Amino acid sequence: MPGIVKERLFTPGPTPLLLEAQLRALTMTLHHRTDAFRQLMRETLDNLRYYFNTKNDIVVFSSSGTGAMEGALSNLLSPGERVLIGTAGKFGERWVELAKAYSIETVVVEAPYGHPVPIDQMKKYLETSGPFRAVLIQATESSTGVRNDVETLGKAVAQMPDCCFVVDAITGLGTTDLRPDEWGIDIMIGGSQKATMIPPGLAFASISEKAARTMEKSKLPRYYFDYTKERKSLAKGESSYTPATSLVVCLHGALNYIKELGRENLIANAALLAEATREASLALGLTNFAVSSPANAMTSINAPAGIESTKIVKALKSQFGVILTDGQGSMKGHMFRIAHLGYYDFLDLVAVLGALEIVLQKAGHKVELGSGVRAAQNVYLRHSS
Amino acid sequence: MPGIVKERLFTPGPTPLLLEAQLRALTMTLHHRTDAFRQLMRETLDNLRYYFNTKNDIVVFSSSGTGAMEGALSNLLSPGERVLIGTAGKFGERWVELAKAYSIETVVVEAPYGHPVPIDQMKKYLETSGPFRAVLIQATESSTGVRNDVETLGKAVAQMPDCCFVVDAITGLGTTDLRPDEWGIDIMIGGSQKATMIPPGLAFASISEKAARTMEKSKLPRYYFDYTKERKSLAKGESSYTPATSLVVCLHGALNYIKELGRENLIANAALLAEATREASLALGLTNFAVSSPANAMTSINAPAGIESTKIVKALKSQFGVILTDGQGSMKGHMFRIAHLGYYDFLDLVAVLGALEIVLQKAGHKVELGSGVRAAQNVYLRHSS
Repeated sequence: MPGIVKERLFTPGPTPLLLEAQLRALTMTLHHRTDAFRQLMRETLDNLRYYFNTKNDIVVFSSSGTGAMEGALSNLLSPGERVLIGTAGKFGERWVELAKAYSIETVVVEAPYGHPVPIDQMKKYLETSGPFRAVLIQATESSTGVRNDVETLGKAVAQMPDCCFVVDAITGLGTTDLRPDEWGIDIMIGGSQKATMIPPGLAFASISEKAARTMEKSKLPRYYFDYTKERKSLAKGESSYTPATSLVVCLHGALNYIKELGRENLIANAALLAEATREASLALGLTNFAVSSPANAMTSINAPAGIESTKIVKALKSQFGVILTDGQGSMKGHMFRIAHLGYYDFLDLVAVLGALEIVLQKAGHKVELGSGVRAAQNVYLRHSS
Repeated sequence: MPGIVKERLFTPGPTPLLLEAQLRALTMTLHHRTDAFRQLMRETLDNLRYYFNTKNDIVVFSSSGTGAMEGALSNLLSPGERVLIGTAGKFGERWVELAKAYSIETVVVEAPYGHPVPIDQMKKYLETSGPFRAVLIQATESSTGVRNDVETLGKAVAQMPDCCFVVDAITGLGTTDLRPDEWGIDIMIGGSQKATMIPPGLAFASISEKAARTMEKSKLPRYYFDYTKERKSLAKGESSYTPATSLVVCLHGALNYIKELGRENLIANAALLAEATREASLALGLTNFAVSSPANAMTSINAPAGIESTKIVKALKSQFGVILTDGQGSMKGHMFRIAHLGYYDFLDLVAVLGALEIVLQKAGHKVELGSGVRAAQNVYLRHSS
């Protein structure tokens, strides 16, 4: 049936763009060594602090989030020092790879895919197997759709004067209640193509005073991702190297939108969509991949028995223009993920569920059409009354 | 519940914009007396012929559709001549108002709102009450969501050598199978903010040789909407007066998209959405306003007993950002209209139905959540297998 099919992006990054923010970048061709740009950058940094929910300074790099993750490690550590890593999926494993690349010894606490990192176990290692210069974890693990308890872990690390707590909040920001200053998060990392609703290309990192002091003594090599240098430059509204100005303009516009909407409302929006998706998934006779502590950023859904998730993902794309992500690594073929981070509203979800129901039925999964949508509508009604 | 709410336009004009076409207009600042513009205009006229499904010349005015309607009358008629008008709603009544403005005597065949114009009755008047210089009608009446049988009427008018057949196809184009050359439509009128997916500001009219000959002798005053002058100018790729160049660039881009999609597929897309909406409406315990011959361009749905359609329209806007139109004139408060003309896909409809179900339930109408969506899904499945 050849007809109009619009593309709908439901991946956990990139996410749907805020067009208003994009359009501003079309007309603002600022040079980066001008007062106009410095002012825009300072306002952006202020709004990033609001978005991060922190009083700490934030640095911005022209890079993907991984660049800022590497920087967290290379800026905090010295050769011979050790880190404690909590991993619950592919992005936790990235911390391990980064440490390996810098020959940093690691102690790794690993959760099976679908489970959160066992924080009690991490606390035990922290007490018995130190010293660690840093503890690294994800706020939400994007490969599995699971949220980690960074509050409890952060408060434990805060007791250790020489250990910094580093949180990859790339998909956690704007989807999850995070309180870096209360919980002792020394470095928190974000990326532009997530809940900030703009294209990829910028990474952000907040830096506590504890982290700043640690960096003064650390000895691992770094240059582009030098947090201290960048922090000093940005205090003057400039970045050390040529910034991705159009993305900074986009970010400035998107953060204004987020401030107007309210950080808490952006998070509540993702929470509503996640809850509605989980209930829709059950109503459709499916099971959720997250065994406990599901994230708001995205919902991972197990493919029904006998149907590969890859097939579902392909059919959604070819028949409805809906772009979801399949499982990563060993999870490929077994589950798919629907994102909620950033610029999504309730009717976006209704649309994707309407498509999913048809695709599941065509693939041979017994499903009552409309029942996933109904479950989502009931969640909406519960929250709106 | 303050969260993200995106605006979704479901009015029968303006309609959702094709962003790609809009973006081209941002970079093309053509002067209108240049070869570059003439070439673009010629390509646009060729594609308009494809879109209209005609070999006739087409003129383009910077105006709303009503301007081209006025032009059809002022270019064909002379003082003392008479017209036969078929009206089934507010836009049919516009033909009557236009004739009155030019002191042209009319014979009017009127259908009650929700019914199509009785073509047999028009044919009888044509045979018994002439002579008429023109017969005027709508292909689809946007105020009621009803399609008129222009084929039968056109073939009857074609037998009359001195009478021209004028069809307002402003919402009919791109939603309805129309064959001007086979059916004897001498002037067919369209507007830019409809199924062509671009903003308001351009009107189109096709001119048969019979119409062109009639215009040579007609005596009503006209200047800006002079079809003959415009036809001559456009043969050279120019318009008589300054054209709305950015809209012409948009139109050029949108027609390229439509040609790629296929005129028949664009029409089938609207037909599918209309059928799905009608069945969804019944599943939700509602009734359709069109008693027979419902249009593909939009579906008019009666408000349930005891609930004003105005209330439904307001709730959809405030809670979900969905913009529908209430009934016009005496129909206000009694029915609402969901448009299908142009850049809509199936999931757009799923989204609006999901919102409608919630709004109806909150307003006190007994509705099984998800049942409207399911009815639409079943129509989709019937057509896709």
